[in-house]
Formats: sequence, structure tokens, C-alpha cells
Amino acid sequence: MCAIVGVFGAKKASTVAYYSLFSMQHRGQEATGISVANGERIAVYKKRGMVADVFSQATLDTLEGECAVGHNRYSTAGSESAGDAQPVFAKYKLGEISVVHNGNLVNKHEVRNELIDNGAIFQTDMDTENIIHLIAKSQKDSLEDRIKDMLTKIEGAYCLAIQSRSKMFVIRDRFGIRPLSLGKLKDGGYIVASETCAFDLVGATFVRDVKPGEMLVFEKDKEPKSQMVFENVDFHPCAFEYIYFARPDSNIDGKNVYETRLEMGRRLAKETPAEVDIVLPVPDSGVAAARGYAEALNVPFEMGIVRNHYVGRTFIEPTQEIRDLKVKLKLSPIKHLIEGKRVAIIDDSLVRGTTSKQIVRMLKDAGAKEVHMRIASPEIKFPCRYGIDTPTKEELISTKYTPKEIAKRMHADSLGFLSIEGLKASLGNDRNYSLVSFDGNYFAGGNADSPSCGDC
Amino acid sequence: MCAIVGVFGAKKASTVAYYSLFSMQHRGQEATGISVANGERIAVYKKRGMVADVFSQATLDTLEGECAVGHNRYSTAGSESAGDAQPVFAKYKLGEISVVHNGNLVNKHEVRNELIDNGAIFQTDMDTENIIHLIAKSQKDSLEDRIKDMLTKIEGAYCLAIQSRSKMFVIRDRFGIRPLSLGKLKDGGYIVASETCAFDLVGATFVRDVKPGEMLVFEKDKEPKSQMVFENVDFHPCAFEYIYFARPDSNIDGKNVYETRLEMGRRLAKETPAEVDIVLPVPDSGVAAARGYAEALNVPFEMGIVRNHYVGRTFIEPTQEIRDLKVKLKLSPIKHLIEGKRVAIIDDSLVRGTTSKQIVRMLKDAGAKEVHMRIASPEIKFPCRYGIDTPTKEELISTKYTPKEIAKRMHADSLGFLSIEGLKASLGNDRNYSLVSFDGNYFAGGNADSPSCGDC
Amino acid sequence: MCAIVGVFGAKKASTVAYYSLFSMQHRGQEATGISVANGERIAVYKKRGMVADVFSQATLDTLEGECAVGHNRYSTAGSESAGDAQPVFAKYKLGEISVVHNGNLVNKHEVRNELIDNGAIFQTDMDTENIIHLIAKSQKDSLEDRIKDMLTKIEGAYCLAIQSRSKMFVIRDRFGIRPLSLGKLKDGGYIVASETCAFDLVGATFVRDVKPGEMLVFEKDKEPKSQMVFENVDFHPCAFEYIYFARPDSNIDGKNVYETRLEMGRRLAKETPAEVDIVLPVPDSGVAAARGYAEALNVPFEMGIVRNHYVGRTFIEPTQEIRDLKVKLKLSPIKHLIEGKRVAIIDDSLVRGTTSKQIVRMLKDAGAKEVHMRIASPEIKFPCRYGIDTPTKEELISTKYTPKEIAKRMHADSLGFLSIEGLKASLGNDRNYSLVSFDGNYFAGGNADSPSCGDC
Amino acid sequence: MCAIVGVFGAKKASTVAYYSLFSMQHRGQEATGISVANGERIAVYKKRGMVADVFSQATLDTLEGECAVGHNRYSTAGSESAGDAQPVFAKYKLGEISVVHNGNLVNKHEVRNELIDNGAIFQTDMDTENIIHLIAKSQKDSLEDRIKDMLTKIEGAYCLAIQSRSKMFVIRDRFGIRPLSLGKLKDGGYIVASETCAFDLVGATFVRDVKPGEMLVFEKDKEPKSQMVFENVDFHPCAFEYIYFARPDSNIDGKNVYETRLEMGRRLAKETPAEVDIVLPVPDSGVAAARGYAEALNVPFEMGIVRNHYVGRTFIEPTQEIRDLKVKLKLSPIKHLIEGKRVAIIDDSLVRGTTSKQIVRMLKDAGAKEVHMRIASPEIKFPCRYGIDTPTKEELISTKYTPKEIAKRMHADSLGFLSIEGLKASLGNDRNYSLVSFDGNYFAGGNADSPSCGDC
Repeated sequence: MCAIVGVFGAKKASTVAYYSLFSMQHRGQEATGISVANGERIAVYKKRGMVADVFSQATLDTLEGECAVGHNRYSTAGSESAGDAQPVFAKYKLGEISVVHNGNLVNKHEVRNELIDNGAIFQTDMDTENIIHLIAKSQKDSLEDRIKDMLTKIEGAYCLAIQSRSKMFVIRDRFGIRPLSLGKLKDGGYIVASETCAFDLVGATFVRDVKPGEMLVFEKDKEPKSQMVFENVDFHPCAFEYIYFARPDSNIDGKNVYETRLEMGRRLAKETPAEVDIVLPVPDSGVAAARGYAEALNVPFEMGIVRNHYVGRTFIEPTQEIRDLKVKLKLSPIKHLIEGKRVAIIDDSLVRGTTSKQIVRMLKDAGAKEVHMRIASPEIKFPCRYGIDTPTKEELISTKYTPKEIAKRMHADSLGFLSIEGLKASLGNDRNYSLVSFDGNYFAGGNADSPSCGDC
Repeated sequence: MCAIVGVFGAKKASTVAYYSLFSMQHRGQEATGISVANGERIAVYKKRGMVADVFSQATLDTLEGECAVGHNRYSTAGSESAGDAQPVFAKYKLGEISVVHNGNLVNKHEVRNELIDNGAIFQTDMDTENIIHLIAKSQKDSLEDRIKDMLTKIEGAYCLAIQSRSKMFVIRDRFGIRPLSLGKLKDGGYIVASETCAFDLVGATFVRDVKPGEMLVFEKDKEPKSQMVFENVDFHPCAFEYIYFARPDSNIDGKNVYETRLEMGRRLAKETPAEVDIVLPVPDSGVAAARGYAEALNVPFEMGIVRNHYVGRTFIEPTQEIRDLKVKLKLSPIKHLIEGKRVAIIDDSLVRGTTSKQIVRMLKDAGAKEVHMRIASPEIKFPCRYGIDTPTKEELISTKYTPKEIAKRMHADSLGFLSIEGLKASLGNDRNYSLVSFDGNYFAGGNADSPSCGDC
Repeated sequence: MCAIVGVFGAKKASTVAYYSLFSMQHRGQEATGISVANGERIAVYKKRGMVADVFSQATLDTLEGECAVGHNRYSTAGSESAGDAQPVFAKYKLGEISVVHNGNLVNKHEVRNELIDNGAIFQTDMDTENIIHLIAKSQKDSLEDRIKDMLTKIEGAYCLAIQSRSKMFVIRDRFGIRPLSLGKLKDGGYIVASETCAFDLVGATFVRDVKPGEMLVFEKDKEPKSQMVFENVDFHPCAFEYIYFARPDSNIDGKNVYETRLEMGRRLAKETPAEVDIVLPVPDSGVAAARGYAEALNVPFEMGIVRNHYVGRTFIEPTQEIRDLKVKLKLSPIKHLIEGKRVAIIDDSLVRGTTSKQIVRMLKDAGAKEVHMRIASPEIKFPCRYGIDTPTKEELISTKYTPKEIAKRMHADSLGFLSIEGLKASLGNDRNYSLVSFDGNYFAGGNADSPSCGDC
Repeated sequence: MCAIVGVFGAKKASTVAYYSLFSMQHRGQEATGISVANGERIAVYKKRGMVADVFSQATLDTLEGECAVGHNRYSTAGSESAGDAQPVFAKYKLGEISVVHNGNLVNKHEVRNELIDNGAIFQTDMDTENIIHLIAKSQKDSLEDRIKDMLTKIEGAYCLAIQSRSKMFVIRDRFGIRPLSLGKLKDGGYIVASETCAFDLVGATFVRDVKPGEMLVFEKDKEPKSQMVFENVDFHPCAFEYIYFARPDSNIDGKNVYETRLEMGRRLAKETPAEVDIVLPVPDSGVAAARGYAEALNVPFEMGIVRNHYVGRTFIEPTQEIRDLKVKLKLSPIKHLIEGKRVAIIDDSLVRGTTSKQIVRMLKDAGAKEVHMRIASPEIKFPCRYGIDTPTKEELISTKYTPKEIAKRMHADSLGFLSIEGLKASLGNDRNYSLVSFDGNYFAGGNADSPSCGDC
């Protein structure tokens, strides 16, 4: 997961990057950072925490320059170190460099081991450090050629923004797995961002999506130079961005996320209808699919579960009641709506099943006569290795149980998934979407045992 | 606004109070506090900030005792002092006392002036300090009698929980303006709280609402003693709790908030329908009414505006684009849903009109062909003096302009309000709700020039 | 203990107060605060922590006005509440008032009980709250008369600075127990402070000491008005200020502290000489007396114990070695100087004896052949009730053991105290100093069982 | 400057390292860090701030293992980044490594450029990163051999503690410029530290100083293995450790610091006596020399300048008075001692002369009839390149002016320095001390234009 942004040719590049990252906070809340280049040097500021907490006006004021790259880091278990925040900065033969990265390299261990055999040292576990080492070790003369050289050595999913003191390079992998769009700022200058919602906030105009296998080079007083840096381009955008990761107001590779989810809900209703009195979403990610589901079945849709947004960091030992049903800290059912009814509850996906089980119990406690769980995506049977943080195969509930068995385990009256075909149809049947978590087709290399997407 | 909670006879009373306040965070985010009594002394902890930030496990561990009272304070302009947090604690003739209060005393200045003339000192501007002084100055022998004495001297809206070292007293004013419910804890003990959503989280069973003019006395090893402490009881629960203040899963005086809002939306549709292609709520408070509105008109309802919940405290000087349209930091429209459509946008109420104007512009910028704003409550023409923080009469847009004029000023294609009759009907026509903001009937004393509800 | 400051008629009164409190940090490190009056209102800022940590430039900028009063609070066991910081502010009949206080009222419980019987409420245990109540309850018309009224009701040791919106009143009790001096600021305006070291830092000129029983009234465009507010004045300045509490560069009631300590050391040498090779002080408070002791005996004085000033707040579980000898975290002996030598170690006073015992052991561990402890003040046999925080009589080692017994218990080769006569002679034999800790003469009321000096 | 510590074979190695760093806080207050190895992995914690603030018990509890290395970083202008704290950790071919370093490499730029030419990347400006790169790039099989390889490539002053998952290597450069001592812990295990004061606090027994050019290898269940890793050893311990840097209770290479300073003061008196009434030190570093100076001249020594230890981080805009004489925030003269007297003021060294000029003015303002400044070390005419942070040649006042001219500029009645011969004699004439700042003899390579000692 994670979000990246690159801004070039803007007077307050760091402020534009700040608001872009702010609008993409949902893609990563563990750490954030921005680096700026002013032609003469690169300055970096990064820290654990959310965008609005990490940056003060005083900090942004120190980040002067017309080019900025920024990053939001997704929280993954076990990583506690501020050193794991991006951008990653280094001094190397051609000067200074700063890199942000969204994705996952499937051959990271091979690359790292070879680098280490040749005397490289590593201070973090991040892919990004590999990338900088490969650039620094390249024998090419220009940074552009060194980047191309580096790209021949990495495999997997990635979107990169790389900053030297005076240029910016933006690359999307040849499968176009992770999203990346190009926009134009009102006062001149360009922006690239993981999601178009960033453009809406900072008032940028959407220009186009960055193409799979494309490198954009930004240089002062020139138009961005586009070049295709791979011979084989094979577009496989990640289906999960649509299913739950991206913000509903973003358009990913030309398709609006909310509308896609609506369609998933409608198809889910056709494939696995339920005789119910009311349709409820698991907020917020299940809302659009639930809307589509209810519409297709012509059953009332209600926001029957309230989400508590005031969740803090402090852990207070709960009372027994809360300990048994932790989901209540985040979600509260509206009993009046639910009591005595047959309820369809719509979630975007089913991973471990832990929370879903609690939701079923919570709805039954609230008086639901029947609870029919519907998942607006297929059964997850394989760990994604292309940038979506998934647990190991063993932890995925759908690798061990059939939908019927799962329904029984979670005391739901029924459980239904969207089929892979249904998902494809919802997405438009126009592209070979990355469906690796559902079909195990590791088209971009790697397999279920490859390095997990811990580092974004 | 504000929330209060009282817990009696529970082993971990402070933990129960903590989670209750956590579930009522929406009623006040400026400051929070809990005091506990253990039979021998009262201990208090209060601080600016939200519940989950203010309390740590270590802090709660110091708050031992079987009786706790707690408070969330609503943020009102100008109050910066931690001293304004509640509970308010004092030592006085009968020992120690701690008080939490939700409401607004309309005769606070008269009371205060008289106290001051008699040599009292005040350290804050809070009603609560008046209340404690009146108790301390009473010549009665018992705390119970002193409280009754005090109640003869205050006017307005209030719910109180008052704690001595070994007892707890809970009072709801004789109009029952602010909500207050009684629940029973699983492991024994009682809880009173402003909203029933607190009971759901801590696993308490709803017993009944506290009656207007009722005082409950909690004492060790006894059942709560109920007594009516006013001769004239005249029930006027606040309509605003239903309109926007309470959480949708709470039941206020026997009515579910979400369902009431649904009905407001349905009646709004009948009273002021709009020929539109899509109905959108202003999230989150307009969701239920929008659902009802769409249902009644049989037009698609969509969550077409995304709310950003990651708003922090740091102010970063925005780019020009954001400065012009600050609402974008909090709300983002889904352009794809809106482009080329006639849109009805449903909000719960219209106060100053500033944000609504920006929302109309945002929707038009997103491509809406027409924007019809509908407000699921009547025109606000009078400042509430009974606990809802409203601006002065001059700042209320509906005191100066007709709906048509307002629509024009905000560039909306039309603007409609729910009528007072429609509101009453939505609420069931069964009670004399407090409609003071709409009809100027200051039934509980005071008038538009009374002290504003600054202190909750 | 504690420090107070009052500034009147200065453009940046809060900055002058800040630096004054900064220079008197040694008198109290638990909490600090400043209030300012600008003719129209009083603003207060106070918090736990040291002066340089509590106040930022931004905070001081909010404290505008030409009159400021400030306070440093001494750390006393058990008081954890920020509410116990001073100044104490209140609104009362004549407007607003803010008070700072250094001292201890011996009749505080009687005063408080009477106030409480008459309906007063208290939020802290501080004397200062008593004082404000007495002023608020007075029936006199002017603040000045109310203050005089209040002074007839309190007993004990006190220096007060009382601020209304436009005036400042400064009072020193009729025994002059605690120190207070008047200075003139360079740019106009006056300053009163507990110690003259404050004048030196802010560039004020010493005018004179405030007299025992004197009240100074400061008013705009007038010279300070002096009046004696007691008929019986009986000057008893506290000997402990000279012994260890005041800063060596301060002059207390006309005598320099360092020089007085030098003389105590010289007289100590005459009264209880030791055959030693080297004289060491317990840093920093024993330095001057050790210098005098060494000079009188013509033995080398060395700073043979290094004090560690980097002591933080975090407690880390020590290794066994450190647990046994905690004084090592703060004091380190220079072994080379000490090895094989007969050492005299000079401390300012002996209270419980705990640290002294560890110092003796530390010196013996460092190789001292003999350790002779000398105390540059008499045996403490009574708790002070006039503003010096002393433990109960039972905890004072000199109430239970003779010097010989104490020496044995702490494994010192000898132990000697300065006699009461010697102390008087060191101070000049010119006044009746307060020697209550040594002679039990509670001249200003109270006795060993009076309220302890917990609140300064 | 800076401090290092290494602990091997101790159960609570991180606690021992913590207290060692705590006792060496005077060597560096900008940042601190500890890493521990437990045979299987290395864990690091480092942060800006002082030891007692950076580490909590909870943090130390996460640092489990029997081997710890730690570091205090000296504050140098311009370095703001937490990334510049030590230990520096890296993964490399042989596993994990963590390094702490005290000193300065004079050929750091040549080394870095060569590494960069070969594709290395750097994330900080620290020497330590060079050292790790050189170890990682070495073709040798064992870490021990790689370290030796690295040592052939670096020049300058250094003490190193290098930790693998199971071993610890300690090296002192072949000139022995920076101090390093070996101690034995009470409960088994060894400790090496920059200063022996660390041993005193943690209860370790001094074993011996690490020899110039020696490498100690610590391995489980073995005695430390000593080997000389250079053919040419040429002992030049740094004179500045004795002059002002080390703590007076430490013994550096067998000589006690306090006693050496006493002797410098005595010799200073012989070389440049002053007809004065009183001798004062600039506290704290001038104390011992002033004692020696006073003793030799038989003039009274007094602690006539009080040092304020409560200096915080917040900057408050001072009053004019303080702005003109900032030294007053830290130092306060005792006027009574000084008025009308001829004063000798003793400082350890004279670098830029800025503070000294203010001290002279402060003493004159305090009424001194004459002020004779004496410096207990020679004129500093060259920047040290061996680990003492000195400004550029241009900023050193003694490169531009004679003592007489300086005295005039600072309005002192006279100024005298200790001669180089006098310094040598005070140190015992037994070794070729590093006197580079005084004589410009860059015996260990480098020159006045070499990289400055910014990184310790």
C-alpha cells in the first residue's frame, strides 16, 4: 500500500506535497515524509505519525525548493523504527538523491544478497534502499541511465519518484500494478500522485495516468519527457485498489472507484442474493457495494452500523464485555433498525475472518433474526506480493474453509462471495487486472513464498 | 452540548466512565475528565483533549473507587483554559464534592452576582462553579437537602451528576431538556449517561430514561432512590438532539435517533421535493435524512461526498485553491457520480450558511447541473439558550434572509427547509419538544439575550 | 520555600518576571506561573515544571500588561496537581485578583474551617486560597482595606504580592521572616523579589529591603506608597536563608549570603576543629562554609566531590552497586585527592542524615583514612513552621541522637555542629534571627504540630 | 569530543551502558544511543537529547543482551538530524554490525570519495559510516581481519567499539590521542569507556588504559584478547582532556584530571602572577586551576561567580540588559566579594574570547577595581583535527592578537597564558602530549584545512 507524490516546478512544492499526502492519508498512517530539492541541495523531513501531526508550518518553511517528493507509509506489524520512513535520501557519486516508492519487489532478497556480497551495507529492510544502491553502483554516466540500469534488475510492483538536486524521475512498472496519475498545477508545474483525490484537493487538473513501463523526466523550463523504458509492457492494474484500498472519489486508470464498487455490489446481488429486510454496509469500505447490493435486490439500504472515528493510541484495559467484542470500540449497530430483521451485511473482502465473526455476533446481539454476510470480492486464497499487505497463506481463512464452513464458524446464516468472473465484469472486462490474491497468477514474478509487502 | 456519565457500585467505575465518555466523544472534544470516590476521598483527573488521548492506563489506575462521574466538554470559541474542564471538585463544609453538568443556566449571571456580593470567589466562568457554591452556601444539614435548595435557585437546562465521598446524586431539570438515561451494569451497579450508546459499549442494560424533574440518589447497598423534586414538571426534550447532535444508534427518550432522522428526510421530501437525479448527504450528520429523502422521492441515494477523518490540529498555510474552498479539507465530492446530474444535497440544519455555500460551489465545480439544497430541520431564527451552542441572532442566516434569498446567495438552484409542523410530526407529535431555535419559545426562562451556552 | 516576584510599570512586565523567576529557580522547581494585569483584565499562565520549560516566547507574548506577579513552587511530597501552582486567580466582588505567596500560615486550618463553616469552597490546600477568600469576604469597600482586614486574620510567615487589574500590593509579615527586596528597573517601573539575585539578572537597582510589617501599594503614575500595617513589628529574619536556601550572590536583609557562610565555616573551625589533611564541601551548598573552615584551619580546600548536574526525571532501575549508594548518581569523589587522607567534609545542615551517611561511606570507599563531618549550622531539633519544609520531629535525626551517636551510626570518625551562639555570631549578633528549628522558639505562633510548610 | 562505552558479558549490559553514558554526559549532550547484541541480533535505540531523557525503563527493557555499545554525541552547529546519532548500525555480508566512535578522521573526505566512486551511498556525514563501509567492502573472511583492513585506511584520532552479534572489538588509534580505559565489572564482564568516572558509577574496577594501537577482542567464555595492530605506535594523548574536557574525578592515562589542573594553576601563577586580592574561577572548568593559582600566590580563592544550572532550551527574547550581557544567564558574580577588589579570574582556555570579554565586563560592573584574566593553557593558534571541536583559524582570537592586544580588547587589566613548556611540565614531561592546537604539530596527519571535528 502506501502513497507517493511528486511535485515539480511549483513555488511551494512542499505545501502541495503536504496536502497531497494529507488527502492520501488512508493509504498509510504509520509514517510520512517529504524531501525537497532547490537545484543545489536536497532537504528531507520524515517521521512516524500522520501527515497533519508530523508537519508544522515551521517544518514546511524549512523545506524550500520547487521539486518535492513525498510518501505515506502503511503500518505493518513489527516495524517500529523511524528509519523506515520514506523518502530515503543518500549522497552518491553523482551528488544527492531522494527516492519514494510504492509497491513491492519480489526479488528483493536476491538483489540485496548480491549487493551485500559486493560490500554494500544496509540500514533498513526497505526496497528503497536496494533501489538507491543499484543506482549508486551503476557504471552509467547520467542518473537517467543509471535509473534505467537499475530497472533491469528489479522485479515486482513499483511506482517510483526519484529526485536529484534539479530533476525528477517518475516510473511505473511495466505491469502498471500500482496506480499513478499525472496532473497539472494551476500556477504551473506538474504533480504525480498515487490517487487522483490528491489533484482534487490541491486544485490540479488531471492530465492522464502514467503508462505501465513509462518513465517521465521533469527538468526545469522543459516539458516532461516521456519514454517507454521496457520492451514488454503487460498492463495488470491491481483489482484491490478498486475493492477497498483507494478512496471512492479517486479514479484509478480511468475508472471511478465508487462506481466500480457499486457495480460489484450489484453483481454480488445477482450472484448470491439474500432474502433480507435490510442491507447494511461495514463502514466505511463496504458502503458503495452495499448500496449496489440493496439497489439490485430492491431492499432498503441503511447506514445501520455507526463507525467511531475517535480511536486513539492509548490502550486502556477494557471491561470484560468489551474484551469479548472489541469491534464495538469501532463499530456500533443501530439496534432499532436491526431488531427482528433479516440483515444482509456487506464487506469489501474477507481476509482472516476475525472481525467479521465479531460483526455477526454484534448484529445478532442487536436482535437480528438472520445475518447474511456478503463479500464484494472473491475468496482470497493467495498472498499478494505486489504491494497489498496480506497475511501468509495459512492465515487466510479461505485457504482452509469453504464459504459454508466459514459461515458456520462465524455463526452467520449464509455467506457469499463475488466470483472472479463477477469481479472482472464489474471492472469492465477490458483489462487483465491483477487478481493474484484470488487466482494465484504471479504474473510479475515471485510466488506465495516471496518477500511479503511489509515495506510498501 | 457536552456529555455526562455517572457510575455507581462498579468495581472499575473509572474504566466504565472512560469507555462511556469514549462512546460520547461526539458530544464534546475540547476537554474531558473523570472523578472517583471511594468512600473516603474523591480523586479527579481532567485535561484538554479527547478521551483516548487524555487518559492512560496509568492514570485510570490512580482513579480507584466504586463511584465515578465524568464529562466531555464541547469546544467553544475563546475558552482555552484547562481550568474549564469538568468535573469541578471542591472541599466544603460537608466534606468533598465533585460535579458534572450538561446544559445551560439562563440565570447564571444573576446567581453569580448574588454569590459574589456575598463574598464568593470564582475561578472559572462555568455554571458548575455556581452550582457548587449554592450547595456550599446552603444552610441545610444534608447534601441531599442542600442540592434541593440549590435547585430552587437555578433556571434553565441541566443534567447533573453530583458525587460525595460515598453517594451519587443525579438530576434532570423539570423540562427534561437535555437527555439522560439510566442503565444497569452486568456485574452490578448502575450507570447514567447522556446517551444510550454508552450503555451499548460498556454492556449495560437500558433501564429507563431519567424523568424530567427527577432526582436519583445512589447509596451503597441500596437500590437507587427516586424522587420528584419539582412540583411543576413540563416535558420539553430538545429537538436538536434528534436533528443532529446525538449519535444515530442512541435512543433519546425512547426514540431512536436514526429512525427519527429518516422520517425527517421523508417529510422533507413531501414538503419540498426536488426534481433530481441523485440525492447526497452532507456526511455524516445528513446521512439518515438523505436516505429518507431519496426513498420518498424514489431517487438514487449515494454517499457522493467523502469525509476525511484525518483532520489534525496543525494549521498549514494552504495553497490559494484550498484557501478559497476550505471545506475541501474535510469533504471531497465524487465527481463521476455528480457530473452532469441534478443533485439534491441534504444537511441536518443551516446556521450561518458559510459551509453550505462552499458545498454548493464544490458540487458545481464537480460538474453538477443543478444543486438543490434541502435542510432536514426548520429555519433557525433564535439562539438556543438550553444547551446547544448557537451564534447570536445576527449571525443566524435565517434571521436575515428568506430561503429564496439564501439560495441565491449560495448559488443553489433551490433551498428548502422542513417545516416546524413537519419536524413535530417526524418526532411523533407526542410531546412538546423544545423548538426554541425555531419558534423562540423560551419556555424555561431566559431569552435571546441570556448567557450563551458557552460552558455546556 | 518558594520564590515570588512582582513587577509594576514595566513595558514587558512578564519578561522581567520570567527572568526573575529563572534566577530564583533554586527556590522552587515543581511549578511556576505568572499573571499579568493590563488595567482591564488579568491573564494567568501556570504549570508544573521549571521556568525555562514552562514558558515559551508564544506564551509570554499572550501575557501583556505592565504589572506581573510570579511564583516558583517548591516540590513537596504528595502534591501532584497543577492546580497547586501559583499565582492563584479569582473573580470576586471588586473584580479580578491574583495572588502569590511565599511562607506558611500557622493558623491555616482554623481560618479554613471558619471559612468553610460560612459556605466557602476550596479547590486546593494552598494558603493562598485562604487569603483570597478572606479578601473576598471582607466587608470593606476598597481592596486595600480588604487586604488589611485579611492581614488581621492570618498568622505565620508570609510575603505576598497581590494584583488587581490596575494596582499591586506587596506585604511582608511583621516578623520579616521570609526575605523580600525592592528594586528599580532601568526603564522605569519597580520590582519586588524574594532574592536580590533577580535584580542582578534583569538589571534592576536594589532600593531597599521591604520592612517587616510593611505594605507597598503600586499605582499608575504614582510613587509606591509605603505604610506600616502592624502595630507590633518584631524583626526575625529566617536564619536558614543564609545557611542554605538563598543563592550565594544574593543579599538578604543587607547581608551577603556567601560571606555569611564563609563566616559560619570559620566559626565552625574554631568551635569544632579537625586534624585533617584536606577540607571538602558537599557541593554546592557547603562550598562557602568549607572555604571558611579550611581557611581558619589553614588546611587545603579542594572541590574534591564533583556534582553531576544532568539529573533527569526518568527512573531507570539501577544496578546493585548504584542501588546501595544512590548518592553516587549526584556526587562523585575524586579518589586521587582523597586516598590515604584525613578528610573534613562540610555540609550546610543535617536533617535526616540519610545522604550524609552515604557520603561518609563514599569517601571511605574512595580511600579516606578518616572522615570528619562538620555541619555549618546547629542541630535541628524542631520542625520549622515558617516556610522551610522540614520533616516531622520524629524524622529529625538530632532529636533522637547526640552528635557522637550520629557519628557512630554514619561511621564518621567525628561529627561537629556549629553552636547556636556561633550561628548568631556569624550572622552578626545584630538581630533576633528566626532560629526556630534549632531553639524551638515559635515566636510567630504555631508549634511543632502546626500545619507543615507544604505549600510554601 | 563525545563519549563511548562498550560492555561485554554483563547480564544487564544496556543498564550498565546507560549509567556509564549518564556519567559521561559532559562529553556530549546532543544525542545518545545504545545498541545491544544477544548472540542472534543487534537492537539499537538512539535519539537526540540527554541520556536521562532519551532512555526510559521501557526502552532499556527492549535492549536485552550481554553486549552493549553506547555513545554520547557532542553538539556541533548545524547538525540537526537524529540520523547523526550513534551507534551506527548496518547489515552487511557477515551479518550485523554496530559501531561507536570518538575522534576525527583527517582523511575522511579522501576515504569517502573513493568509496563513493565505487558505488557506495551515504546517509550521514559521520566518520562512522566510512568505517562501516570499509569493513563491508573488505575482502577478508573474518570481521576481525576486515577491521584490521579498515584500520590501514583511516587516519586521525579514534577510539572505536565495534559489535557483531556475538563479539566486541575495541580499538584505540596508534597515537592514543583520545582516552579509553578498560574495567572489570563486579558481577563478571568487562567495560571500556572514554573516562574512568564511568567505572566509579557502575562499580567497575579499573584494569588499565587501552594502549595506543591496541585492539581488544571480547568473545563469550574467553578472556579479552589483546593485540597490537600497528607497527608504529607513537603515544600522543590529547592535552585538552586534562585542560577542560574530562571530568575532574577521571584519571586519563594514569593521571588524575583535577590534580593536573591544580598543577596548571600553580605553574600559571609562577609564570604570570598577578597582584590581586582574590582569585576566582570561571565555573566549573576553571575551579581546579584557580585553586592552584590562589594557593601558589597565597591569595584567597573564592567561588565568587555562581553558575546557574537550570538552563533550558526555550529561547525567550531577553530584556535589553540581558541581551547586552548574555553570560549573566549562566554566571552571576557575588558583588560583595568583588567590590573594590583586584580580581584574578581563571579560565581553562581562550578560544574566541567572546564570553571572556563579557565576564570581564560583568566583574567590572560588579565593582572589581582591576580584573586580571589568566588562562590555564597556552594560546590556541591552530584548529585541532583530532577530536576537539575548534573553530577555524580565523575565528581563534590568538591567531590575530597578542595577549596584550586581547587584554585591551576585553578591557582586562592584564591577560596571561600558561606557556607550552608550563603545560608540559604540569602534565609531567613524561609523554609527547598532543598539543596541536598550541603548536600546530599535526603528527597524526591532516592540517588546519582538514575536515573539522564536527562528528566526533
